[in-house]
Amino acid sequence: MGGIPNYILLSITMPSIKRIWIKEFSRKFLLCLKKYRIDLIGGDISRGPLSINATTIGYVERKSRMMRSGARNKDLIYVTGNLGDSLVGLKILEKQIFLNNKKDSEYFVNKHIKPKIRLYCMNKIRNFINSAIDISDGVIKDLDKILYFSNCGAKIFLDKIPTSKKMSKIFGKKKSLYYAINGGEDQEICFTIKKKYKEKIEKFFFDTGIKCTNIGKILMNRKIIFVKNKKIINYPWKGYEHFEN
Amino acid sequence: MGGIPNYILLSITMPSIKRIWIKEFSRKFLLCLKKYRIDLIGGDISRGPLSINATTIGYVERKSRMMRSGARNKDLIYVTGNLGDSLVGLKILEKQIFLNNKKDSEYFVNKHIKPKIRLYCMNKIRNFINSAIDISDGVIKDLDKILYFSNCGAKIFLDKIPTSKKMSKIFGKKKSLYYAINGGEDQEICFTIKKKYKEKIEKFFFDTGIKCTNIGKILMNRKIIFVKNKKIINYPWKGYEHFEN
Repeated sequence: MGGIPNYILLSITMPSIKRIWIKEFSRKFLLCLKKYRIDLIGGDISRGPLSINATTIGYVERKSRMMRSGARNKDLIYVTGNLGDSLVGLKILEKQIFLNNKKDSEYFVNKHIKPKIRLYCMNKIRNFINSAIDISDGVIKDLDKILYFSNCGAKIFLDKIPTSKKMSKIFGKKKSLYYAINGGEDQEICFTIKKKYKEKIEKFFFDTGIKCTNIGKILMNRKIIFVKNKKIINYPWKGYEHFEN
Repeated sequence: MGGIPNYILLSITMPSIKRIWIKEFSRKFLLCLKKYRIDLIGGDISRGPLSINATTIGYVERKSRMMRSGARNKDLIYVTGNLGDSLVGLKILEKQIFLNNKKDSEYFVNKHIKPKIRLYCMNKIRNFINSAIDISDGVIKDLDKILYFSNCGAKIFLDKIPTSKKMSKIFGKKKSLYYAINGGEDQEICFTIKKKYKEKIEKFFFDTGIKCTNIGKILMNRKIIFVKNKKIINYPWKGYEHFEN
């Protein structure tokens, strides 16, 4: 992590040419590219079931990269933003969840289809970061990739897992935690830092107005311990399963 | 053109996990990569209708690149290999063509699913090449991209369009020409050279054993003239249409 995207290749497969759809898709897609200053440099178009595939190419300086393998014993673990809203948005789109309030529905759906990308804030603090990963399969599942490549474990304070006020209010504490842990496509960042940078990092996020929460710390042994109400508990996390039915 | 592929990203969407299929696909895919010395560096996997998307990244030295815009008046136009076999292979797979002889069927299908990539032979002669393009939408449609970017035209000798002996024998001259002109995914190369390199280039291909045919020459005016039996004729070419029904 820590690269800056420069180029994108877009490949689309679609059953037939629908000009209005293509025009609207292109307009919005190009707006996105403009926002992040990315050039569309190629791709492909063919006939088949609808499938949209984008490959982004970027650059990162060796000294600026953030690796999954950099977590060290006693590091503090942080996550940006709130978790789980995107999964609720997906479930609304898939008609597995129905909310009476239209505004609430829109809030969650937008969290799924229009995630905020933490591109520039992370680059400003990259020199203080030991390891980082973007959360797309659920915070524990993605953190576990850091633990695997860093050959260490973690203690997670479940009470600290950040969820939005809207989610807690609508779904309650327990269900909110479930969505936050097993959520997909949050697009938030999970990272670890040395304890001595705690104040510096927390001040940075406070100043930028981006929520950032210390959810646990790195352990030497390759295991994950969950703590709730100061007690160690067994929490059956699994993360987002792409091929679950 | 003229780049050497180094890396590939593979994205697969599939309705469900079929382990045997994935194992066999991976084995053959990795064999291909090994053959061309390409590293698989990433990609994605999600659930949806079957769709396989590969993005290859390579490098080319500025002085070695072959552009669509380099064709010059009086250049000779060449194509490698035979054209049209791949389209017949596709039509066999789509059950639009049925051949009694199984070996003939296999020959055409293999031309579609296992095209030879003219990667290294083209790089050996790139200093003599003014313009080049790979033929994936039909020779005239792809040549027309060279003509467009080079702002010139072409005279094409239809009798010279190269087709395989098997195709001529089974489909006759006229139909073979149709398949050759409108073929898709031939993966052969269309290129232009200065007339003074004619002997050098033809000797090179003779020595390597790769068929290479002079099918016409570049004209100053932005038009395509077809010649058959020494007469100018009107040939209704269109090339491969991705969204034709």
